[in-house]
Amino acid sequence: MIYRFGKTITEGNATQQDLLGGKGANLAEMSSIGLPVPPGFTISTRVCAEYDKAGGHLSAGIMDDVKRSVAFLERETGKSFGSETNPLLVSVRSGAAVSMPGMMDTILNLGLTDRSRRGLEEASGSARFAHDACRRLINMFGDVVAGIAHERFEAAFDSIKKKYRAAADTDVGAEGMKELCDTYKAVYREAAHAAFPQDPYQQLQRAIEAVFRSWNAPRAVTYRQINGITGLLGTAVTVQAMVFGNLGEDSGSGVAFTRNPSTGENRFYGEFLINAQGEDVVAGIRTPRPLDQMRRWNKDCYDQLLRIKDILERHYRDLQDIEFTIERGTLYMLQTRSGKRTGAAAVQIAVDLANEGLIDRNEALRRVPAEDLTQLLLPSFAQTDKKSAKVLTIGLPASPGAATGLLAFSAEEAVRRGLDGTAVILVRKSTSPEDIDGMHHAVGILTSTGGMTSHAAVVARGWGKCCVVGAGAVEIDAQGRRLTIDGTTLTPNDTLSIDGSTGEVLLGEIKRSTPKLPSAFSTLMAWADSRRRLGVRTNADTPADAQRAREYGAEGIGLCRTEHMFFEGDRINDMRRMILAETKPQREKALKALLPYQRKDFVGILTAMKGLPVTIRLLDPPLHEFVPHDPKAQRELAKASGMSLKRIRQRVDALAEMNPMLGHRGCRLSVTYPEILQMQVTAITEATISCKRKRIDARPEIMIPLVGLRGELEYLRRLTEQTIEQVRKAKKYTGRLDIPIGTMIEVPRAALVAGSIAEVADFFSFGTNDLTQMTFGFSRDDINSFLPDYLEKKLLTTDPFQTIDESGVGELIRTACRLGRQTSSSLKLGICGEHGGDPASVHFFEKVGLDYVSCSPFRVPIARLVAAQATLGSP
Amino acid sequence: MIYRFGKTITEGNATQQDLLGGKGANLAEMSSIGLPVPPGFTISTRVCAEYDKAGGHLSAGIMDDVKRSVAFLERETGKSFGSETNPLLVSVRSGAAVSMPGMMDTILNLGLTDRSRRGLEEASGSARFAHDACRRLINMFGDVVAGIAHERFEAAFDSIKKKYRAAADTDVGAEGMKELCDTYKAVYREAAHAAFPQDPYQQLQRAIEAVFRSWNAPRAVTYRQINGITGLLGTAVTVQAMVFGNLGEDSGSGVAFTRNPSTGENRFYGEFLINAQGEDVVAGIRTPRPLDQMRRWNKDCYDQLLRIKDILERHYRDLQDIEFTIERGTLYMLQTRSGKRTGAAAVQIAVDLANEGLIDRNEALRRVPAEDLTQLLLPSFAQTDKKSAKVLTIGLPASPGAATGLLAFSAEEAVRRGLDGTAVILVRKSTSPEDIDGMHHAVGILTSTGGMTSHAAVVARGWGKCCVVGAGAVEIDAQGRRLTIDGTTLTPNDTLSIDGSTGEVLLGEIKRSTPKLPSAFSTLMAWADSRRRLGVRTNADTPADAQRAREYGAEGIGLCRTEHMFFEGDRINDMRRMILAETKPQREKALKALLPYQRKDFVGILTAMKGLPVTIRLLDPPLHEFVPHDPKAQRELAKASGMSLKRIRQRVDALAEMNPMLGHRGCRLSVTYPEILQMQVTAITEATISCKRKRIDARPEIMIPLVGLRGELEYLRRLTEQTIEQVRKAKKYTGRLDIPIGTMIEVPRAALVAGSIAEVADFFSFGTNDLTQMTFGFSRDDINSFLPDYLEKKLLTTDPFQTIDESGVGELIRTACRLGRQTSSSLKLGICGEHGGDPASVHFFEKVGLDYVSCSPFRVPIARLVAAQATLGSP
Repeated sequence: MIYRFGKTITEGNATQQDLLGGKGANLAEMSSIGLPVPPGFTISTRVCAEYDKAGGHLSAGIMDDVKRSVAFLERETGKSFGSETNPLLVSVRSGAAVSMPGMMDTILNLGLTDRSRRGLEEASGSARFAHDACRRLINMFGDVVAGIAHERFEAAFDSIKKKYRAAADTDVGAEGMKELCDTYKAVYREAAHAAFPQDPYQQLQRAIEAVFRSWNAPRAVTYRQINGITGLLGTAVTVQAMVFGNLGEDSGSGVAFTRNPSTGENRFYGEFLINAQGEDVVAGIRTPRPLDQMRRWNKDCYDQLLRIKDILERHYRDLQDIEFTIERGTLYMLQTRSGKRTGAAAVQIAVDLANEGLIDRNEALRRVPAEDLTQLLLPSFAQTDKKSAKVLTIGLPASPGAATGLLAFSAEEAVRRGLDGTAVILVRKSTSPEDIDGMHHAVGILTSTGGMTSHAAVVARGWGKCCVVGAGAVEIDAQGRRLTIDGTTLTPNDTLSIDGSTGEVLLGEIKRSTPKLPSAFSTLMAWADSRRRLGVRTNADTPADAQRAREYGAEGIGLCRTEHMFFEGDRINDMRRMILAETKPQREKALKALLPYQRKDFVGILTAMKGLPVTIRLLDPPLHEFVPHDPKAQRELAKASGMSLKRIRQRVDALAEMNPMLGHRGCRLSVTYPEILQMQVTAITEATISCKRKRIDARPEIMIPLVGLRGELEYLRRLTEQTIEQVRKAKKYTGRLDIPIGTMIEVPRAALVAGSIAEVADFFSFGTNDLTQMTFGFSRDDINSFLPDYLEKKLLTTDPFQTIDESGVGELIRTACRLGRQTSSSLKLGICGEHGGDPASVHFFEKVGLDYVSCSPFRVPIARLVAAQATLGSP
Repeated sequence: MIYRFGKTITEGNATQQDLLGGKGANLAEMSSIGLPVPPGFTISTRVCAEYDKAGGHLSAGIMDDVKRSVAFLERETGKSFGSETNPLLVSVRSGAAVSMPGMMDTILNLGLTDRSRRGLEEASGSARFAHDACRRLINMFGDVVAGIAHERFEAAFDSIKKKYRAAADTDVGAEGMKELCDTYKAVYREAAHAAFPQDPYQQLQRAIEAVFRSWNAPRAVTYRQINGITGLLGTAVTVQAMVFGNLGEDSGSGVAFTRNPSTGENRFYGEFLINAQGEDVVAGIRTPRPLDQMRRWNKDCYDQLLRIKDILERHYRDLQDIEFTIERGTLYMLQTRSGKRTGAAAVQIAVDLANEGLIDRNEALRRVPAEDLTQLLLPSFAQTDKKSAKVLTIGLPASPGAATGLLAFSAEEAVRRGLDGTAVILVRKSTSPEDIDGMHHAVGILTSTGGMTSHAAVVARGWGKCCVVGAGAVEIDAQGRRLTIDGTTLTPNDTLSIDGSTGEVLLGEIKRSTPKLPSAFSTLMAWADSRRRLGVRTNADTPADAQRAREYGAEGIGLCRTEHMFFEGDRINDMRRMILAETKPQREKALKALLPYQRKDFVGILTAMKGLPVTIRLLDPPLHEFVPHDPKAQRELAKASGMSLKRIRQRVDALAEMNPMLGHRGCRLSVTYPEILQMQVTAITEATISCKRKRIDARPEIMIPLVGLRGELEYLRRLTEQTIEQVRKAKKYTGRLDIPIGTMIEVPRAALVAGSIAEVADFFSFGTNDLTQMTFGFSRDDINSFLPDYLEKKLLTTDPFQTIDESGVGELIRTACRLGRQTSSSLKLGICGEHGGDPASVHFFEKVGLDYVSCSPFRVPIARLVAAQATLGSP
């Protein structure tokens, strides 16, 4: 139940964080390796669990054990708890396995009573020090144990300061401090309806109980819910002998990182204050000094600290975040823990530690949180500048990065001003494929509705373009070209900044930094590549994206969407003519006009990815997405196409669907209009032949979307093969033209009958976006009306569009893999949904044995790293 | 390869229809039981398959076998093929196991050449007869073998008739017939570029080949596709010695049913013609006489026919449809087959045959095609009246029955005129829940869009109300209150008739008959009930529907939807107030106003179904369906509710969803607005207590829709149980109140994790409509844009919304049953989707072991019968 640590005995070690909490376990560990740690003991989390179980009651034996442990501290320190001559004071701290805001933090100086205060005065030789310690205890104890508002103590302190004309706390002398102690006691008595306890053990017991109670305080419970922290027993309580950094000019306190946590540079990094306690270093009232100045102040201590730093790093084999105190020239270590670091530092440190031989390369790979790589790849706001900017509202962080620009309220405006060289942020209620061109020309995208997988979010992530969605507080008047957020109205020439990593919408311009990739990044990626089993491809629709993804290490394109290609320039008019055609010849004529565009697109992409596979998905979205919906655009189309406005409207109306996601799209389009497939396959085949004749190793794969029936794929595969053969003959091409033909598994039925679909497929690519939509019956465009409630009520722990739902959607994936491979052991299996770049999901895809994942270009490094981590498993 | 039948030898029998076709097998059967059948032989379907396989080539040995078989006929008849004195003539008929329009039917008199015609003249003693036989052969042979248009022969005949001033064919004498034969030969030569073949064996070979070819004629192929006929080898060819009913006043032909095929009455029923061939009886040129007049004409033959009728019924143990010919006083049987019959006759005959001891009760149950029961339950148009009515267009037969009425172009008009006592047909592009009241007051519903599972179709079927949907040719001008179909324009006071069983839209009024249920129906149903394992419940939302379903034998309500209840009268305003509420108190106030209505509804339904379970589904559809969408209704609501029009529009817009089917509906509503569930559960509980206090055995079950996560059901179950307890306390009720709480399995994920959902469910009810939508990714409202192509291209054999998709959706059902029962062996399993009343689907539900099916009231008898048939299996 209780684990002691000290010079004479140390029980427990760093691995026992579940039982001792992070603080307690690391103090025991430091103590056990001989570092100077003030002695202490930790009451384990089991006691907390029993306290809860007993309805908030500390079991009888515990306080006896505590007393025995205090006796241990007395032996170790030679001091005595509550003593009038040489009193032992202790700190009481909570500590769970995971650090958690909202729980009671710390009570210092516990054990001070009127009696022992006199002892402290005597031992320290300073009345002011003793009273200062005392008032701090009453304040902290009153606050966290008795629930007395901190402000009440604050007010009392202010009166004293006024009375003694003291500007700062430190200006209050011994007399003032004494008076303050009395005043605090009076405040305590009035608020708590009882005197401040004069029995040190009563103080201790009540402090321990307060820590345990704080485990179930609303803030702590909410924090655990939000962060999905489950399975913990409770919090531990660490009671440790106090040491004081504020006992004069030969005392001090400091905090340090064993390496630079921002850059990862291997240089000791920290700050210290003379004659101060640890809390003063972080409180920011006095300005601490850089650590290397410590050498001049106390070289012995500094050298000892350097040695300890090395010991700790070698021991923990990781960046440590440490706290220390020097009491009258003696160094004490008060804390060590794994240090938080930026993405760049994480990479640098992991690679350095491996090169230094402290960890092996596998461990280095495990050490870097994959998601943190985003920070290395995308621009971000300078934190200092951002702090001073006004946050107007916070939306959903749909696509990371940082963008600053003027405002465009329509796609057309974004294109126009973008081409003029103006950086604009496109602001829309939501986006649709009609807005693609405008989104492309904007530096960032902000929408007031939609979720993490809305159109804007998906497209932006694909491009690595900064995007914030679902910012409900943004009221947009697109007609009037202005927006209002909580009373602030902005017009086209106002500047807005959006942070795609946090969802923040900020007023004005904020400085941005675009990171340079350190060489450690390439080293780590190379290590990852040598270890991972999963292939990593990218989702890319343009040669530029393809090129970028290739630079990030993509081994092919797993999803090349063809629909975006039809929105550029004049093509959209031909596309619309094709859609509005009423007869097959009309449609074929329009398709013929589209063919050269498509061929050119494919030549570009196949060339950019030469030597690597390029999976091209045939037209997928409902045709309705391509036709103009506003009257003005309809009139323009009427003029351009020679069709009557009435007919255009009729056709647009006829194409509208109740549930377009479940409507006439995907391979269903090719079943009803085979000529669309024929045009696309012709373009792919002609592009391939054209590349091959230029000795470019083009390797297209044709992917037929939304198949749910074996017959669909069988029929369309035949049509595809026939078309390829026709083109080959027409082009008199005699070389090899092995174009694999496969399908997406994105309709639940496809997974269920995957065995028979596999008979006519060369590969499966899981379209987990649609598969998630249909398996849950959740429209990703409409999910925002209930998803927040689901997360809040813990009916879902994560958004299933971000992290794959293993038990439902995952079950379909497992089934499809099993059935597909039963039919054809050589069947290639990949995934090209949004989940392809999500770390937790990639672990799942490794587990089910997919051949590759495909994700947005910017997530390729993340996927490469996670794929390696998934192969390595836990150490 | 060839099976002979005759007095001396008979090979083959009635069970060999796959090999011999229906005709050939039954001729062999009749021959084998000693009935007077002209001898013949059947070339088996295997030969057809080989012919196809050989690329349309008859294998060498076959014609030798045919010649040997012709020799058999010569021996049996004492006639000689091609003889100049006593020639053998034969008929050549196709015959597959399933009768199939589009295949070559019949060539009579084959074997007639110039030479044998002289022999026939001699043998019959009639030159006219011989030439008549000859011209018929040339015509039929030319038509079906040489592909000469029938009109060319027709035109030649007309010239001859003109020349001989003959009004009818029969008025043409011997000389004219002789001339006609020559003319026909000339027509043949000119069209076929060859003389009419004078070798009887050449005639025979070419006729056989023509039959085989016709198996793959486009019409036959299409017919097989449409009717899902697969697995057949091909067609057989039956060659049979000719007998002639047109050899004078002692000859004749007739067709008969062994019982009345319309009513099932056990009375011999048929017609005959003296001096005529079989085709004349059905051709309608001369009026045939009723069969009982035959007694006076030739008592011996009549008595013999009666005996044969009894023999055939005893032998086949079923209604037979027979053809016979009397040649110079001798009776020959030319065909027997199971007779087509109406639904009423099917029931009557099956029950009679069982009572007569010809079949057992199980067989009687198997004999009645369940779907045919519809005819007994719903009104239908008098066939004679319908024939003379103008069919304006044909839509989809969404809900069977027949309706005639004036036209209403809006729900509001239908209500108004319906209340005035006018029978109106509601004509809409499509319907939505807003139209419910109008649909209810119309006698029939016609829509120009939508499929078999569109809103109009589903609602109408639930009510047993006649409905035709997807009648694309109907152009509706709702504003102008008129419609146009192919040039015919109709206004509100024009009369239209719609046939919900055929999809026909007819001009004007047509007489309808409402059937009375015969006592045989109750008998058959009782037999079915004693044999079936599956329970049969109904989907009913009103006391009236519940009562009707109970009369039809429903054993409970499997689906009581609560949404329809909110559209009546004033409730919709309270419902809208609830939806538009912006705060919880506002919403609770509106819900409070709805509570008494709901309670009253439930009291009514629970009372109607006393002693039987009533599964009440909590609110399911998206709230958007309840709010007004047209500006007028919005203005009215603004006035009634005191809300601003702007706010109403904002809220209506906010509720709109991209894919409402996958949106904020079902249990998701209760998760975000628990107070809706609380109101509904309060109403159910209060209604139950109120019934129980009146000693009415109310047995509600609460069904929570659209669950996909165990947590959803767990949370809402707890809320439901708490609410029940609160009501119980408030009402001070101390009796038993066991209200089972279960869920629909309609989201694929629910089926995949059914094991864990079952831990918190008392029952599962499969919602196969939604499950089909999500498993296929097919929106039932939008499927019409591609389903026709899918059926035509055979990618689907049936509409999966009508008949359950066993391999996909069925797999999820099997999985859910298995996992659910693993968790809880007592878990009750039912199905309440549209498939609950579909025969093929019910067979599947029996196979997977559901406890009950639930279907529309009018389909309850069908489900009862199919459930019995499913238990019985094949004999």
